[in-house]
Amino acid sequence: MGASPGTLIADPSAKQSALNLTLISPDACEFINNASLDDVAAACEQWPLIWLDCVGLADIALIEEIGNIFSLHTLALEDVVNAGQRPKAEFFDDHAFFVLSMIDDAKSARYEQISFFFGENFVVTFQEREGDPFEPVRQRIRISNPSRLRHRKADYLAYALIDAVVDSYFPIVDATGDKVDAIENELLNAQPQPRPKEHIGELHGLRRATNLLKRTLWPLRDALTTLIRSDAAFISAETKVYLNDTLDHAIRLTETVESQRETMIGLIEMQLSLSQARTNEIIGVLTIVSAIFIPLTFLAGIWGMNFDHMPELKSAYGYPAALGFMALVAVALVVIFKRRKWL
Amino acid sequence: MGASPGTLIADPSAKQSALNLTLISPDACEFINNASLDDVAAACEQWPLIWLDCVGLADIALIEEIGNIFSLHTLALEDVVNAGQRPKAEFFDDHAFFVLSMIDDAKSARYEQISFFFGENFVVTFQEREGDPFEPVRQRIRISNPSRLRHRKADYLAYALIDAVVDSYFPIVDATGDKVDAIENELLNAQPQPRPKEHIGELHGLRRATNLLKRTLWPLRDALTTLIRSDAAFISAETKVYLNDTLDHAIRLTETVESQRETMIGLIEMQLSLSQARTNEIIGVLTIVSAIFIPLTFLAGIWGMNFDHMPELKSAYGYPAALGFMALVAVALVVIFKRRKWL
Amino acid sequence: MGASPGTLIADPSAKQSALNLTLISPDACEFINNASLDDVAAACEQWPLIWLDCVGLADIALIEEIGNIFSLHTLALEDVVNAGQRPKAEFFDDHAFFVLSMIDDAKSARYEQISFFFGENFVVTFQEREGDPFEPVRQRIRISNPSRLRHRKADYLAYALIDAVVDSYFPIVDATGDKVDAIENELLNAQPQPRPKEHIGELHGLRRATNLLKRTLWPLRDALTTLIRSDAAFISAETKVYLNDTLDHAIRLTETVESQRETMIGLIEMQLSLSQARTNEIIGVLTIVSAIFIPLTFLAGIWGMNFDHMPELKSAYGYPAALGFMALVAVALVVIFKRRKWL
Amino acid sequence: MGASPGTLIADPSAKQSALNLTLISPDACEFINNASLDDVAAACEQWPLIWLDCVGLADIALIEEIGNIFSLHTLALEDVVNAGQRPKAEFFDDHAFFVLSMIDDAKSARYEQISFFFGENFVVTFQEREGDPFEPVRQRIRISNPSRLRHRKADYLAYALIDAVVDSYFPIVDATGDKVDAIENELLNAQPQPRPKEHIGELHGLRRATNLLKRTLWPLRDALTTLIRSDAAFISAETKVYLNDTLDHAIRLTETVESQRETMIGLIEMQLSLSQARTNEIIGVLTIVSAIFIPLTFLAGIWGMNFDHMPELKSAYGYPAALGFMALVAVALVVIFKRRKWL
Amino acid sequence: MGASPGTLIADPSAKQSALNLTLISPDACEFINNASLDDVAAACEQWPLIWLDCVGLADIALIEEIGNIFSLHTLALEDVVNAGQRPKAEFFDDHAFFVLSMIDDAKSARYEQISFFFGENFVVTFQEREGDPFEPVRQRIRISNPSRLRHRKADYLAYALIDAVVDSYFPIVDATGDKVDAIENELLNAQPQPRPKEHIGELHGLRRATNLLKRTLWPLRDALTTLIRSDAAFISAETKVYLNDTLDHAIRLTETVESQRETMIGLIEMQLSLSQARTNEIIGVLTIVSAIFIPLTFLAGIWGMNFDHMPELKSAYGYPAALGFMALVAVALVVIFKRRKWL
Repeated sequence: MGASPGTLIADPSAKQSALNLTLISPDACEFINNASLDDVAAACEQWPLIWLDCVGLADIALIEEIGNIFSLHTLALEDVVNAGQRPKAEFFDDHAFFVLSMIDDAKSARYEQISFFFGENFVVTFQEREGDPFEPVRQRIRISNPSRLRHRKADYLAYALIDAVVDSYFPIVDATGDKVDAIENELLNAQPQPRPKEHIGELHGLRRATNLLKRTLWPLRDALTTLIRSDAAFISAETKVYLNDTLDHAIRLTETVESQRETMIGLIEMQLSLSQARTNEIIGVLTIVSAIFIPLTFLAGIWGMNFDHMPELKSAYGYPAALGFMALVAVALVVIFKRRKWL
Repeated sequence: MGASPGTLIADPSAKQSALNLTLISPDACEFINNASLDDVAAACEQWPLIWLDCVGLADIALIEEIGNIFSLHTLALEDVVNAGQRPKAEFFDDHAFFVLSMIDDAKSARYEQISFFFGENFVVTFQEREGDPFEPVRQRIRISNPSRLRHRKADYLAYALIDAVVDSYFPIVDATGDKVDAIENELLNAQPQPRPKEHIGELHGLRRATNLLKRTLWPLRDALTTLIRSDAAFISAETKVYLNDTLDHAIRLTETVESQRETMIGLIEMQLSLSQARTNEIIGVLTIVSAIFIPLTFLAGIWGMNFDHMPELKSAYGYPAALGFMALVAVALVVIFKRRKWL
Repeated sequence: MGASPGTLIADPSAKQSALNLTLISPDACEFINNASLDDVAAACEQWPLIWLDCVGLADIALIEEIGNIFSLHTLALEDVVNAGQRPKAEFFDDHAFFVLSMIDDAKSARYEQISFFFGENFVVTFQEREGDPFEPVRQRIRISNPSRLRHRKADYLAYALIDAVVDSYFPIVDATGDKVDAIENELLNAQPQPRPKEHIGELHGLRRATNLLKRTLWPLRDALTTLIRSDAAFISAETKVYLNDTLDHAIRLTETVESQRETMIGLIEMQLSLSQARTNEIIGVLTIVSAIFIPLTFLAGIWGMNFDHMPELKSAYGYPAALGFMALVAVALVVIFKRRKWL
Repeated sequence: MGASPGTLIADPSAKQSALNLTLISPDACEFINNASLDDVAAACEQWPLIWLDCVGLADIALIEEIGNIFSLHTLALEDVVNAGQRPKAEFFDDHAFFVLSMIDDAKSARYEQISFFFGENFVVTFQEREGDPFEPVRQRIRISNPSRLRHRKADYLAYALIDAVVDSYFPIVDATGDKVDAIENELLNAQPQPRPKEHIGELHGLRRATNLLKRTLWPLRDALTTLIRSDAAFISAETKVYLNDTLDHAIRLTETVESQRETMIGLIEMQLSLSQARTNEIIGVLTIVSAIFIPLTFLAGIWGMNFDHMPELKSAYGYPAALGFMALVAVALVVIFKRRKWL
Repeated sequence: MGASPGTLIADPSAKQSALNLTLISPDACEFINNASLDDVAAACEQWPLIWLDCVGLADIALIEEIGNIFSLHTLALEDVVNAGQRPKAEFFDDHAFFVLSMIDDAKSARYEQISFFFGENFVVTFQEREGDPFEPVRQRIRISNPSRLRHRKADYLAYALIDAVVDSYFPIVDATGDKVDAIENELLNAQPQPRPKEHIGELHGLRRATNLLKRTLWPLRDALTTLIRSDAAFISAETKVYLNDTLDHAIRLTETVESQRETMIGLIEMQLSLSQARTNEIIGVLTIVSAIFIPLTFLAGIWGMNFDHMPELKSAYGYPAALGFMALVAVALVVIFKRRKWL
């Protein structure tokens, strides 16, 4: 970020770029993998709707050239190559810029930035890596007849792609919910000595993951609202009804995550309470054993002293009497402890 | 949600659908259970106000057909079959869509989504399962004369149904309050050794239930406000006064739940404080017993040593003197502890 | 609440109703206890300003009749008989409805709902039980000359009554503040062993009481603001200046209560910290006594063993040497503990 | 507050009133201590700008007379004599009322209410007690030439006085910050046994003081904003620029106090953590000593038993063997504890 | 702050002032270090864009003279010399004032206030000390051709400088994140006895640093928003697009810091939980050792008593029987503890 604003600099870890071109008309569609820029330029003139998907952000020259073809704003392109943007929507003269994070890999919950540009008749998407949740959208483009995707403009295609990304959060969020429930069950039903360190670490990890989700989803709501409230000519009122539906999904995701966070905070406090209760239980055992046997041991010590003149030691009934006295003391202590509810 | 938007897909666990038709005019009313779609179509033409109640959401074709009869919006129908929506109100050209959760079963506090569509002269409701809080409304429809339900339009009927659902929350919320009070009493008056794990688990469970209630009731306020503020022609100003009353109830519910949450958080902290106080009490007993008898036992150990030359052992007064000295030490320790307020 | 909206149903525990009528003109005033509805109807025609106070809400027919005389809205009357409303202000064509809670009994801090209706020339109040803070207002009505209460309209009388209720919160709030201060002093200056369970219970009780106060006072601010911002013809600009003063009092009450809550949360945390500090102190004593005497007792045990060949036992200096060694060990341990700051 | 609104009642603890009159014109200024009401009335006619400072609020008749001279509103005068008002600004026809708290005494941080009335050509201030931060303002009035105070109107003088009060908070807030830092240093660098009760009490006291400051400063921001946004003719645009500067100071004060509160909450939690860490350390010592010596003492007890037939006691190597075995056990325990990282 | 407003008073610790002048035209640029005021005055007439950078704030006369040359507002100059201002933007007739904090030294994270004035054709910056993040900007000014900095007006230069300061926060914030991660790893993977006091102190220090960052960055967002929303003629629409980008960076910084704070609070709670878990572990060891050996030692004490008539002592099998009985007791206790899951 030390460079002059508007100058694109590739992230050193960025992947090699490749272009996938999807050409759409009400009557036909064509998919070109590893398309060249010439293919793109040619398509722009021939097809009513094109979707250019650029995977990998290492090739700055290519990205700049795409920017030229579709007249994309330089600052927006800068955001494309600098991963880690907050979800946001921005409007330029004849196109909109929309950026959000998607879960790149369901297992590791790694995030990947995905950027959308769309105008009247084109959608350009930029992904950091291969792998996206767009396959169902491509499937629906292929099926010609009833598909709105073939008959509507770029705004509806952009909506369909954004919706696919938002919906791809649901499995991740549900998996988190399942983990929270599992920990809760284990804590409540656990044997008296649960492995506390494991739970503490696991809860903490989930908390971080949920905080991350929350921070990703909150600005997404604002970004979608910006799209819905825009008066740009290339976003139709009907598409806005659909975007509203996506916003509903985003709000549900946010609330689910928020609720998971509350549950987790409750679990962390419960874990502490249970741990404190466990301390009391252990200390209680120690106290009772000690408080009964330490006085008795003292008595045994008394009669183990080597004084010459200890008359009770000579008595034939000394030993049983001593044992009896000890038993009496033990019983008395137990009774006292029971009365005071310490047992 | 991977499907094309606007395509209805039944939840695999959805119940078989059945239609209940209620036909209302100022002078008469008719209840048709297990109505057919033909009944519905016929009724639409003959009766000034009809209420179609669809129980069970498995029959997608039926639901789509109902959508066609009343021109309901596809995205709203999608929300109907996808349970777990947030309470919300949406307006379409000639009808409104209102969705909320109702407590399906007072004992288990299981939630069920219930969706309302209403226009000028019809109300359509969709429920997931049998069992609803609408019986008093049906009762009031039957009683012809003074009932506003027979003389007013669909908006008032929709209000009456929504109001019935909102009011059905009161017993659940009150029951939660009673449970909170019971735990509070038990904690404060409990014997010194309350069963902490039970209380901790119970409090945690209540907390989750209350969080769920809160998340259900908060958006309900917004949804009701949307209805009240709408300028749709089919919602009369007078009905809005009544909806305002329902909103009042919803706000009271929210505030009661919020207050229960605060009390519960207080109880959780109190439980921790009491537990800590209990630890101190137990450790105090242990400390006093140990601190008095361990030194005494040491003394007994001294005089139990087997050295040949321990003059005090030979003395006739050695034993009583030793006992006296021990008693002295014990008294001294007790006095020290009392002075330092450790007893 | 299962009944048809607008149908009044008495609370089973409601008290028998009685009417107190206060008749006011600039030149005269008259107080009629246990007035009949005929008295009310007659007064309406003869006096420029009347105040009807209905104590006890059991007589539904009477309340409905009052509603008819003054044309009060049914939904508002429903709120009157259903205690537990949130403070609120509502406006109808020619009268306003204002409901709030008052402290019925300073000692038990029991709440009682009090409802106000006022229009151009009447104020109607409904109380649940006998006992109200209105005596000073009645006193000021009696004193004819300088009293604004005799010369102004119903809005000023309503203000004076509302103001009296709001001001009656001050002693309650101040008493809570005194209790908080008392607990704080006791905690900070207490002997080392304060009775923790008592404090915990007391703090928890105060916390609940304060939460209740907060929930009562917060909506009162909104309700008063609604009155002040209304453009109803029967509330004069000058009365609004006075209502603003009442709002100021309500805000001060809210802030005082809020501040007491913060202090209480601080006290609860302090109680926990002090308790933890106390645990450390007790455990410290236990540790030192144990750590010094347990090794010594072990040494005594060594020389108390009955082996035939323990040369040191035979030595004339064995015993004093053993005692000396023990003293040495004891001193060494004390020095080690002091160095490590454990003493 | 039980009295009729607008009736002034002196606080029983109010100090005797005294008037200080400052008369200002561009060319001259005059200071009259213990002025009479006649002086005031005379000055009003002769000087373009007068500042009347009333110290002590016991003389209700005097305060009412001042109210008459400057046509001050009765409700505002009521606020003047009832100390404990929230900072606020109110506008009347030709004058503004501004009330805030000032720190009366830097050492005890006692608060004192100070009220300002100002119109076109007068400022009236009411203080509870002698002692104010106005000396620099008086100084600047005395220096005739460059002083804006001599050439501008009452609004600028009022600003200068308010600014002086706001700035007088800085030393108090800075002193609190220093105390927080001192406690932080002591906690972090303290010997293992800090005096916890002192720190706990001190932190709690600071927390209360900071809460008080926060509650005093927050409404001050609103009050200043009210002044700045007013469209009263007697507050010039230029004075508003200066008031904005005062508002900036007030915001800085609020943020500093807020930050101190956060730090203090952090310190309280840290104190708890350190205390818990200390518990662990102490218990660790106890555990190690006990866990090593209790088994050894048991062994010594075994060989101290008086059974006739204990062959090892007869052996010449019994004693050294026993000692060796004990040493072995001790070493083994230490090794086990080290392996499990308990040492 | 006790002085008359608008009077500049140097901070006693302020550094000696020095002026650096940068002269810019589309065709040329010139850098004059240690410029005189005459240089400045001359440059104003000859160059279309000048940037005056004043390092060190001790020379009040110089600063006032600069104020005169560029007609800067006195209250703003007062803010320049009083370090510790909140970030803010203010607009005067023909120039804007912008103040923020920059990290003066990446290692110590010491803050330094930097003030900007800019109008149509000048930028004046004031720094407390040498060392700034402006070198890249100077570099871009030197490169004539493609640089927007040479062709645009003062607003773009001001943007470039503010952007450089905002971007200089990133390394600091990232370093904090790395430290948080390091502590987290250490806590989770640590040996059972982590050095708790170090972690507690380190976490507390990071928390304070993060609170400071948060308080610096939050008002920066507002200040940037003020710039962007201004309608001042000397800020072009295009520059606002760039300022929006800077605002984006500021928001990302704030959210990162906010997230680090949440993580840290989580870590502090986790540290407490782990500490509590550790207490349980240690106490568990103590309890088991004590609870097994204390009863056994008591038994040994019994048979170590010196009563004359203890028949079992005479028996040839007494000793092995006693040992066997003790072993039995030990095994029984271990079994009981295992059953109750205390081991």
